[in-house]
Amino acid sequence: MSEDLFDLHRATLDRAVEACRTRQGWSAFAEPSAGHPDGTAFQAQLGAAFDLGQPGRLGEQTDEISPYTGDPLGISYPVTPVDALFAAAQRAWPAWRDASVEARVGVCLEICARIHERAGELALATMHTAGQSLGMSRTGSGTNALDRGIEAVAQAYAAMARVPATAGWSRDFGGTTVALTKRYRLMPRGVAVVVACASFPAWNVYPALLASLATGNPVIVKPHPTSVLSMAYAVRACRDVLGSAGFPPDLVSLAVDTVAEPVTRHLVTHPATRIVDFTGSAGFGSWVEAHAFPAIAYTETSGVNAVLVDSLDEPEPVLRALAGSLCLFSAQMCTSPQNIYVPRDGVPTAAGRMKPDEFAGALADAIRAVSTVPRRAAAVLATVQSGQTLRLVQEVRDRAAGRGHVVLEPEPYAHPEFPAARTSGPLLALVDAADHELFGQERFGPVAFVITADDADHALHLATGDATRHGAITAFAYSKNEAFLDRAESAYAIAGAALTTNLTGPMPLNFSAAYSDYHVTGLNPAGNASLTDESFVAGRFRVTQSRRMKG
Amino acid sequence: MSEDLFDLHRATLDRAVEACRTRQGWSAFAEPSAGHPDGTAFQAQLGAAFDLGQPGRLGEQTDEISPYTGDPLGISYPVTPVDALFAAAQRAWPAWRDASVEARVGVCLEICARIHERAGELALATMHTAGQSLGMSRTGSGTNALDRGIEAVAQAYAAMARVPATAGWSRDFGGTTVALTKRYRLMPRGVAVVVACASFPAWNVYPALLASLATGNPVIVKPHPTSVLSMAYAVRACRDVLGSAGFPPDLVSLAVDTVAEPVTRHLVTHPATRIVDFTGSAGFGSWVEAHAFPAIAYTETSGVNAVLVDSLDEPEPVLRALAGSLCLFSAQMCTSPQNIYVPRDGVPTAAGRMKPDEFAGALADAIRAVSTVPRRAAAVLATVQSGQTLRLVQEVRDRAAGRGHVVLEPEPYAHPEFPAARTSGPLLALVDAADHELFGQERFGPVAFVITADDADHALHLATGDATRHGAITAFAYSKNEAFLDRAESAYAIAGAALTTNLTGPMPLNFSAAYSDYHVTGLNPAGNASLTDESFVAGRFRVTQSRRMKG
Repeated sequence: MSEDLFDLHRATLDRAVEACRTRQGWSAFAEPSAGHPDGTAFQAQLGAAFDLGQPGRLGEQTDEISPYTGDPLGISYPVTPVDALFAAAQRAWPAWRDASVEARVGVCLEICARIHERAGELALATMHTAGQSLGMSRTGSGTNALDRGIEAVAQAYAAMARVPATAGWSRDFGGTTVALTKRYRLMPRGVAVVVACASFPAWNVYPALLASLATGNPVIVKPHPTSVLSMAYAVRACRDVLGSAGFPPDLVSLAVDTVAEPVTRHLVTHPATRIVDFTGSAGFGSWVEAHAFPAIAYTETSGVNAVLVDSLDEPEPVLRALAGSLCLFSAQMCTSPQNIYVPRDGVPTAAGRMKPDEFAGALADAIRAVSTVPRRAAAVLATVQSGQTLRLVQEVRDRAAGRGHVVLEPEPYAHPEFPAARTSGPLLALVDAADHELFGQERFGPVAFVITADDADHALHLATGDATRHGAITAFAYSKNEAFLDRAESAYAIAGAALTTNLTGPMPLNFSAAYSDYHVTGLNPAGNASLTDESFVAGRFRVTQSRRMKG
Repeated sequence: MSEDLFDLHRATLDRAVEACRTRQGWSAFAEPSAGHPDGTAFQAQLGAAFDLGQPGRLGEQTDEISPYTGDPLGISYPVTPVDALFAAAQRAWPAWRDASVEARVGVCLEICARIHERAGELALATMHTAGQSLGMSRTGSGTNALDRGIEAVAQAYAAMARVPATAGWSRDFGGTTVALTKRYRLMPRGVAVVVACASFPAWNVYPALLASLATGNPVIVKPHPTSVLSMAYAVRACRDVLGSAGFPPDLVSLAVDTVAEPVTRHLVTHPATRIVDFTGSAGFGSWVEAHAFPAIAYTETSGVNAVLVDSLDEPEPVLRALAGSLCLFSAQMCTSPQNIYVPRDGVPTAAGRMKPDEFAGALADAIRAVSTVPRRAAAVLATVQSGQTLRLVQEVRDRAAGRGHVVLEPEPYAHPEFPAARTSGPLLALVDAADHELFGQERFGPVAFVITADDADHALHLATGDATRHGAITAFAYSKNEAFLDRAESAYAIAGAALTTNLTGPMPLNFSAAYSDYHVTGLNPAGNASLTDESFVAGRFRVTQSRRMKG
């Protein structure tokens, strides 16, 4: 049955393995259709129980409140004691551990297909928990996230396929030939815990969940308590597919906690935990890495991403690209830029030097062209996932006002469909390199700084220093000076952030393509795992062997 | 220059990559020649300075005493402060980090060749520090260890070669095609620390050192203070080859400490450490794994390895094979068996049931055939590396005498060439499964138990339980019952020890073949790293990327 699933998805797998090899880019999915999805199922779920058939009672999740409506979703999820989750996972494990690689990979790819079938429901769930726009819920958290999941399955499959099942071996010992038949088995490590973030869970959970599952490990998914529903759908898809394929559904389960009583530390340090995937803050990520032993930890946290503006022909397309990226999902992405460095004596352009305050003013105008037009703002900025983020933005605004110049106030926009939506345009402040204490760390949410530096190399030095100390995932440079761009590429390779140079046009600057862009390097505090290199999958299974005399 | 080295060793590399793929077994080296090596250089080194050109003064290593002569080697090694080692490594790093994969791999393979050129000197150094026989010093610590080193280089090269250097990528965004050129760079992680054990350093140091070096990391080698010389030779070979190839020799350095003032914890937790390879006790290995963060740790420690005797045709070849393995280097190998389980009502043989005391007595006779014949004993048992080991053997002997039956006393033999050699034949005790407290952990050195259990499945249950709790690397089963052997293979796959079944003949039971046998699974406390799977190399380098608009 599950080998049938392998055959069914074989073409997708082969194409994904090839895409991982060449990294030329590909998608298993067509562009999501436009138009509003059918909301019937989603509406019916609100205020209702979400039963997964897990052990334990159902309990209402009061932390889950739509950033669009301000209303609690009122959904009851299974509340399963942590020890019961591990016990169920371990009971379920043997059948999965002993299944063939093909059976497991077939199930994983069917899970992706099953999630995709429910794309509309999932998109609405993502909107009303993570607060993303409908478009991003369908792409970034939909097809792109599933592509990253398939990418992880493909890398896991390729890695497992490189281990031979058997080998014949012989050698001479003092004139006598000893011949052995050796058998190599792929052994999963054990129970995997996947800890999701609130604002963009699917993109990291799918690869982690599927990489662990494909390599034979049971998985406990721990969503953020304010952002459970989309992960509950994903876990249901896993359990349904596993069950249909004849495996115990408890191979994938959901651990629901609350803001008041979090269970992440308990899950990470549980004696049965063997793998932890964590997405969240850099501070908590470091705690996970330091305390996961004997489990191995894969983390993706956050960083302070920079833009180095050295010299431009035409400022306008660059400003539009920057504004788009600063507005995209109100900069609540780990790839969003924050610190935009310009030379203190201005940015050389075809029309002469553009002084820092001119540059900042023009950037503010480009942002306003998005943030003050409700329909565009709704599509690009969407909402702010957490009220805490708004408070932090205000705090930074007040501090920035005391040290520099607030070029653009972080003002809410009126969402055309959801009058109660929690929104905020970006804060843009003009500061100097000397104000490092203000911008030298990640300020999560719609916060950006235009920072005056001596010159582009000074900016590069500051920005890569922050990347090394506090983490960074992306970086952007605009320059007509090839020698500077080469220096920037080398410096960022060492600092471990992906550098994109001179990009303008319709692609969001921080778009990260499945199968092609490596996401996070593991070389700075923004995380130790990369989507998707071989080290992301290699540790999730081990090889055991047996030897017998031949003949 | 160093690319020339790649061309020079290309055929070896290709063959090694192929051997890693098929795991059919191969060696880059001919069998070591017989006859005594020229000892001139070794003799000249005794009592003299071993200068490596490292920063710091030279200091005499008073802990290094030959297990053969009882005399201090009297060698002075560089005593470089830990911070100076890291500073030198980091100064040396950029040239190596920026070198091509081919240049680095060429240097690594030339290092193996250079070490092999000095095989005679190195074998004598291994004898008089680790205490191995001349034969084992030449094979296990010579050619086999170098083969495992080349295996690690081959796996590292294959992993790096699977990452494309560039990719062309394009995608439609709202009707506009965005085309990017992406460049992927392999970035080493940073300074690597390799901590060696006293009795068998080369076998683990070569793979660790070469895997880290091939992937671009500087390496600090920390030998056991009683067993420095062979590692000093290896480090000198690295520094010579690096220097000749135009790289800074400080890419590989030696950290010499003393028993009184160890520096391992300091090295492991140094803020500049990014990779740790550790060989030593399971307890210290766990400490390393738990405290290495932010470095990643690869460990190989020790375990309690078992033999399950279920049923035999002819006992004699089995007893001879077991005796050989119990005697080999006085069981001071992490693969040496310790616990030999037999059914309480006897082992069925072609000649009827062999009662446990008969079996133990016959095994003692087979051991005596090695341990009481000085020339054989010298070739097989060699010496006991540490006086502490003899004291522990005596302690176990006294406890075993109180609980069971000492079948064979651990008596020294008179070495035919070295009258002062520290030697001991194995202790063999007959105990019951109920005496678990005595045998349920590793007793390092020449200690073995014949343990009576209800039956083979009871023994399997006990032995795999100990493997899971305390670690195990190898396991051995003798049975005519195919169903039992299948159960044993499955149980040991889960417990994470390599099972060898029904092996007799001239190959030492615990022989582990480079390119073919996976050594350590990472599934139990005997270590988290495996020689040599992809996870052994995948984490030592990362991938960074840059993107530019095309055209």
